[in-house]
Amino acid sequence: MAEEQFLAAAVGAAKSAGEIIRKSFYLSKKVEHKGQVDLVTETDKACEDLIFNHLRMLYPDHKFIGEETSAALGSTDDLTYDPTWIVDPLDGTTNFVHGFPFVCVSIGLTIGKIPTVGVVYNPIMNELFTAVRGKGAFLNGSPIKTSPQNELVKALMVTEVGTKRDKSTLDDTTNRINKLLFNRSIRMCGSLALNMCGVACGRLDLCYEIGFGGPWDVAAGALILKEAGGFVFDPSGDEFDLMAQRMAGSNGHLKDQFIKALGDAS
Amino acid sequence: MAEEQFLAAAVGAAKSAGEIIRKSFYLSKKVEHKGQVDLVTETDKACEDLIFNHLRMLYPDHKFIGEETSAALGSTDDLTYDPTWIVDPLDGTTNFVHGFPFVCVSIGLTIGKIPTVGVVYNPIMNELFTAVRGKGAFLNGSPIKTSPQNELVKALMVTEVGTKRDKSTLDDTTNRINKLLFNRSIRMCGSLALNMCGVACGRLDLCYEIGFGGPWDVAAGALILKEAGGFVFDPSGDEFDLMAQRMAGSNGHLKDQFIKALGDAS
Repeated sequence: MAEEQFLAAAVGAAKSAGEIIRKSFYLSKKVEHKGQVDLVTETDKACEDLIFNHLRMLYPDHKFIGEETSAALGSTDDLTYDPTWIVDPLDGTTNFVHGFPFVCVSIGLTIGKIPTVGVVYNPIMNELFTAVRGKGAFLNGSPIKTSPQNELVKALMVTEVGTKRDKSTLDDTTNRINKLLFNRSIRMCGSLALNMCGVACGRLDLCYEIGFGGPWDVAAGALILKEAGGFVFDPSGDEFDLMAQRMAGSNGHLKDQFIKALGDAS
Repeated sequence: MAEEQFLAAAVGAAKSAGEIIRKSFYLSKKVEHKGQVDLVTETDKACEDLIFNHLRMLYPDHKFIGEETSAALGSTDDLTYDPTWIVDPLDGTTNFVHGFPFVCVSIGLTIGKIPTVGVVYNPIMNELFTAVRGKGAFLNGSPIKTSPQNELVKALMVTEVGTKRDKSTLDDTTNRINKLLFNRSIRMCGSLALNMCGVACGRLDLCYEIGFGGPWDVAAGALILKEAGGFVFDPSGDEFDLMAQRMAGSNGHLKDQFIKALGDAS
């Protein structure tokens, strides 16, 4: 099946890029601060080149959207019906710089604008999340599913504060957290792709983020979460839009309650 | 040296308790929700019994303070000048229930009220942090030190939202986060002991928490962080009080800037 070949190609590319990330990750703490910025840029670029070259050689007719090379991309119009690889070569760059172990490669493939293959690989913790549309989700080859939690007050939620530091965004961000803190607790780990995979494998129950970088952060994670039995949607409750830089996700039970809570918190 | 023997005893106890935690951690996702609560209680109790029995057999004259058996303890008066083992058998219980991999055993020893030995062990990620007063801090046997970061805006901060959900506490908590978010970003991982070790090994630059459970959360971590070259202090800038349920920590450069920022945020 073509999808299984696409998956194998994505896993191969993610593992090779992960090797570069792992080496740089342990080097990162050793270089001077100024050098760290270059190390991020270089690692990001080297990984994206490697992944794109790997996939382009196999699929010369496919399209490619990457964080490094297409950061300007912003509207749905730019995603076509052609098979399109959407790649974040290094998600969690702040963690990478600091040596905090939540970093990953994220590779998604859309066909007809529909997420069809998803791979998220954390080379530091050696966790490989994979999914093919309609075939379930896996962690290191074993099937995963979302948590059975059906009470919002017992749910563990993950989010991020993003990178914008203007007063209006900050106030919105912390007010939202204030109003959502009826739940058991909150986590912030610094990688949206890994947050979505955390909900997919049932370690976390809910996630949301408003104003993240682009489709490369969510293209793979959204498929993995859905294939694990969860839901991915716009925080307003509308349908999820890969290009909208807004997302919310839940296990298989909490979607409606979470949409209501997000509405009350906005 | 006596301290080295105390350390070896604490590491032995932490590893044995860690084995119980590891087994229960992977079991936790498989039991029904109601059963999870019992599993936490049972694991917590089994680990504390194991650690206390192990240490009591070696040091029958020492005193013991544990989260499970001494949760009522609250004032400095209860800590004597005798050698006292201060133990959290399972820090990060919410993570434990959800299967989120930041859980640990924390074992500290005070002699003359001074933290002298500290062990924090995460059995899921297989990370063992250790310190003896005056002898440096270690991760899996290799020396660790805090980050060289000296600019607050580039610092990565970690905190927790605690367990209280009354409006006044929630407002204080989120207002503080709002005012401290001039820095690069914030993490919340659900274990204060591991947060302090994260600063100790330079993955994080700053940590604080106000209103945590008790001295068992910080007795080991505070020593590990200090021995790695960092500072531990009261968020007001006053001297750190092991029994006060308030703490802030920094690498070797950011203490004064962080105290000022915490003051402005309160």
